Amino acid sequence: SEASSNAATKYSIAVIPGDGIGPEVVAEAVKVLDAVTEPAGITLEKTHYPLGAEHWLATGEVLSDETMEKLRGHDAILFGAVGAAPNDTRIPSGILERDLLLKLRFTFDHYINLRPATLYPGTTSPLAEPGDIDFVVVREGTEGLYAGNGGRVRQGTEHEIATEVSVNTAHGVRRLVKYAFELAQKRPRKKLTLVHKHNVLVNAGRLYQETVNALAPEYPDVTVDYLHIDAATIFLTTDPSRFDVIVTDNLFGDILTDQAGAVTGGIGLAPCGNINADRTAPSMFEPVHGSAPDIAGTATAQPVASILAAAMMLEHLGHEDLADQINQAVRRDLETHGNEKRSTDQVGDHIVAALKD
Amino acid sequence: SEASSNAATKYSIAVIPGDGIGPEVVAEAVKVLDAVTEPAGITLEKTHYPLGAEHWLATGEVLSDETMEKLRGHDAILFGAVGAAPNDTRIPSGILERDLLLKLRFTFDHYINLRPATLYPGTTSPLAEPGDIDFVVVREGTEGLYAGNGGRVRQGTEHEIATEVSVNTAHGVRRLVKYAFELAQKRPRKKLTLVHKHNVLVNAGRLYQETVNALAPEYPDVTVDYLHIDAATIFLTTDPSRFDVIVTDNLFGDILTDQAGAVTGGIGLAPCGNINADRTAPSMFEPVHGSAPDIAGTATAQPVASILAAAMMLEHLGHEDLADQINQAVRRDLETHGNEKRSTDQVGDHIVAALKD
Ligand SMILES: CC(C)[C@H](C(=O)O)[C@@H](O)C(=O)O
Ligand SMILES: CC(C)[C@H](C(=O)O)[C@@H](O)C(=O)O
Repeated sequence: SEASSNAATKYSIAVIPGDGIGPEVVAEAVKVLDAVTEPAGITLEKTHYPLGAEHWLATGEVLSDETMEKLRGHDAILFGAVGAAPNDTRIPSGILERDLLLKLRFTFDHYINLRPATLYPGTTSPLAEPGDIDFVVVREGTEGLYAGNGGRVRQGTEHEIATEVSVNTAHGVRRLVKYAFELAQKRPRKKLTLVHKHNVLVNAGRLYQETVNALAPEYPDVTVDYLHIDAATIFLTTDPSRFDVIVTDNLFGDILTDQAGAVTGGIGLAPCGNINADRTAPSMFEPVHGSAPDIAGTATAQPVASILAAAMMLEHLGHEDLADQINQAVRRDLETHGNEKRSTDQVGDHIVAALKD
Repeated sequence: SEASSNAATKYSIAVIPGDGIGPEVVAEAVKVLDAVTEPAGITLEKTHYPLGAEHWLATGEVLSDETMEKLRGHDAILFGAVGAAPNDTRIPSGILERDLLLKLRFTFDHYINLRPATLYPGTTSPLAEPGDIDFVVVREGTEGLYAGNGGRVRQGTEHEIATEVSVNTAHGVRRLVKYAFELAQKRPRKKLTLVHKHNVLVNAGRLYQETVNALAPEYPDVTVDYLHIDAATIFLTTDPSRFDVIVTDNLFGDILTDQAGAVTGGIGLAPCGNINADRTAPSMFEPVHGSAPDIAGTATAQPVASILAAAMMLEHLGHEDLADQINQAVRRDLETHGNEKRSTDQVGDHIVAALKD
């Protein structure tokens, strides 16, 4: 069962390396994890699960109920990336996404999709004047347009209607917004920005806005702001330093965090926690980036996102101090070597070395 | 009725200046329109309609059926912007959007929402190395999540469910994609990028992808590409020059075009055509930006978006040559004066002057 204090010294971790560069970046994350936990007397028992496009092609399993039950027994999941090359027609679009990634998020109730966006010293932003970027997107992970609610009527005919239903519940929005307020309260700037489109999506948008309004009095020290999603993409380009904590729905969060990744120097640096904050099932930690089959095997994949995801995992397990050691080591490493050309395992080695600085 | 050849010499134009900076930028657009049409022997008869937040507060009318019928009689509509200050609680969120803006788009079947994104010489992009940005987003305008299909069950209780339904029809997608292919074929690079999220929105996404696939053989000279919306926001930040024509749904188009506006130096330069390409009702041309009540009355509003929208209107009316004169004048003006501080009417005057260069 999930540990939530610093007391535990042994954890059972499921490792799902996946396809493409997934295994390459996860190997570096594991290297850094071991380097930080062993001296602290903490053991991470790792069980590898071969899932993803290759596994599906080889065995026909996307993610069986049996595997799900095994995964449920772990304290946390460290995930790489899954997906074949975009031109590989053997794998229909949506299969791995729906029946593997989203199945994990939905079954394990990963309602917090936590995505920090940080511009590190030593990394280059594509923005001319990026400012001081340090915000976190709290994206909903289990409802909205991801609910898989929709269909096709008269499919393939000129009279076809295809629908997608965004499902938003008071329960789902409230626990999300509460988490975001609590996070904002812990951060120095204490600012929460709701991003939605409540002038068009009047039903879901109002539920979000009313939930923020209803909870705000419990967090009087948190400044509350609102932006439409379209305006938010403008500010991410022109003034990203205005953001502290963003709370938003599943799809808007997907879009914003990829844009945020680009703005902060590439999604090779962007980690993601798929968190069940009630700890009724294991949470899962992964880089935001995908399996990048085009560069797999070239040892050029950037493992920092995966390493930062591992730090998020330690924090979730109650070891904030160890998470912080990794975060600081990454920061020092990027400051020193950020603009150098390095192989994937060199980056891992450098970060292990920086742990000792 | 709508003119579609160069033959006509007289047009009846509805002008809806709206709120905030709307009237200020529309005045400059009209100035430039007159300067280019009069020497060509073309008369634009303009009828002003006072619509928007102020009008609603004063009269209780958002947009009556009577006004709609009057608007229907015009050859085209030149629109400014509507909306009160965000903190003005007298106007509930969504009223002007749904019952005015979207009512116009839906009733007049503005199924093509056309939004060029150009980085002009003399303007500054927030990107460090913006490259040569010149693309057009062909956004769907009459369906998707904008259909207003959704609701709230058990509203205000802890058991509330709020839904939004994205409605996509073969008819709606096909006419959109056809338009986008034809546009791509006319442009030098002849490249069409479908932007969607068909790995998650499997129903709507597949309808879009299958429609593109089905029409592609009719346009063998057009290169077809696909990007998920999240990836598209990355490339808009890191490599916007890769885009030529983007075809996408209503909400994704909303998001992408605001981001594109930011990337190309501000939405003060981004025009929009709400086009009924079957010409069964008047099309409408507007800047992408809103009414910006905070700067209204300060003569600092940038009128270029509105002026470029006026050029799109002339092109739609069959006067591509005159549209081109405006576009070239804007380009010359920005090249010369783009980085100067100018008042709204100075910009209009300069562009009128540049028409003669
Ligand atoms: C692969 C896809 C299902 C996923 C998502 O849309 O959530 C990805 O883009 C992400 O952001 O983790
Ligand atoms: C005001 C709003 C309804 C509108 C939209 O979402 O389409 C605006 O953002 C736009 O892009 O024209």
